[in-house]
Amino acid sequence: MARALAVLGGPQDLWPQNFKSLFEQNRDFLIGVDRGSLRIVEEGFKPRLALGDFDSMSKSELAKVEQSCPELRYSNPVKDDTDSELMLEAALLDYGIDDLTVIGALGGRLDHSLVNLLALCEPRFLKMAEKVTLVDKQNEVHFLLPGEHVLKEKPGYSYFGVGNLLPVEGLTIQGARYELASSDFAYPKMWSSNEFVPGQSVTISLQKGLALVVYSRD
Amino acid sequence: MARALAVLGGPQDLWPQNFKSLFEQNRDFLIGVDRGSLRIVEEGFKPRLALGDFDSMSKSELAKVEQSCPELRYSNPVKDDTDSELMLEAALLDYGIDDLTVIGALGGRLDHSLVNLLALCEPRFLKMAEKVTLVDKQNEVHFLLPGEHVLKEKPGYSYFGVGNLLPVEGLTIQGARYELASSDFAYPKMWSSNEFVPGQSVTISLQKGLALVVYSRD
Repeated sequence: MARALAVLGGPQDLWPQNFKSLFEQNRDFLIGVDRGSLRIVEEGFKPRLALGDFDSMSKSELAKVEQSCPELRYSNPVKDDTDSELMLEAALLDYGIDDLTVIGALGGRLDHSLVNLLALCEPRFLKMAEKVTLVDKQNEVHFLLPGEHVLKEKPGYSYFGVGNLLPVEGLTIQGARYELASSDFAYPKMWSSNEFVPGQSVTISLQKGLALVVYSRD
Repeated sequence: MARALAVLGGPQDLWPQNFKSLFEQNRDFLIGVDRGSLRIVEEGFKPRLALGDFDSMSKSELAKVEQSCPELRYSNPVKDDTDSELMLEAALLDYGIDDLTVIGALGGRLDHSLVNLLALCEPRFLKMAEKVTLVDKQNEVHFLLPGEHVLKEKPGYSYFGVGNLLPVEGLTIQGARYELASSDFAYPKMWSSNEFVPGQSVTISLQKGLALVVYSRD
């Protein structure tokens, strides 16, 4: 199981509370995207890979990253994908990472957050969507491919939401406070504020499409 | 032109900087959703309509809202739509509001933010999506139906992103720093960090589907 932590340039004050242990657990494969690569260095770690156009960073900031990182990929914002799409390509396709946690992906600028959330809908990433978890201070986002998925209560999170970004068939929520009988949705939709029944797991299933689960807290 | 401001229960520290003038401009039709209704009262205004299950509010908080609001709609979280969908139904369908600004809809809990963003994809709201603007401290979100849309630079916003939540045909971006030749996308996608060319307007067109524009700033 190859794991990695990708640090994107989103608001640092929204990083999950346990970010230090995420850095430790993934110290062998930290990926910095744009300003996220500098943040890895500032936290005292070395990025295994840094990528981006780095245009929001000063020369001395970029030098700090270049000194501590064995592989840099410079993107061209006119020709290339967005930096977070390049990151997914590098992590999932080039390096075969199969447990990718992403921080700095949510909150702040919504155009950035939506790039990060929607990228997994692209055909080239879709099959690997389950390998990716987006985490911030209040949320943990998992993607679900067709099949049956058992969710367990997660300490610290009071709620979970279920939704679909691509059209889904047979989306079902069983064992939760609010259940959903098998339903098809041709458009993206989200159901918020669902809750676990104490001591009971929740089963989410779908036959087609892409669903997502957001564990969240106030 | 009937206008309204809806205040949802999302993080108050992410309200747009000009929220006081938004309250003033819409003082005749303020809509409070759940805890948002209390915030309207706390800002010294009276909601024209309040709706929600209000289960996160104390009795005395709810009493404050009830005293100052001529119409309350109590939702049932088991049977009903989410509160923000009920708000859209009330504003757009029941009251025929055609310029609806929404604050407290983004940031914080992602399950809530996604409900608010994706609701406009529902068939019953889709045709009216252009009437709705979501605003927070860093972002202003507009929805675009098929046709040609001319965007102008917006003071205070350095960037804009263009995306689609529903499949789109013929999505085109002209006159911007990064252009897009007419393209079809079967899956939702976002392009972030686009910029206006100084003094030049941007034209976004699509033939089918639903696009969105996010004006954003760091």
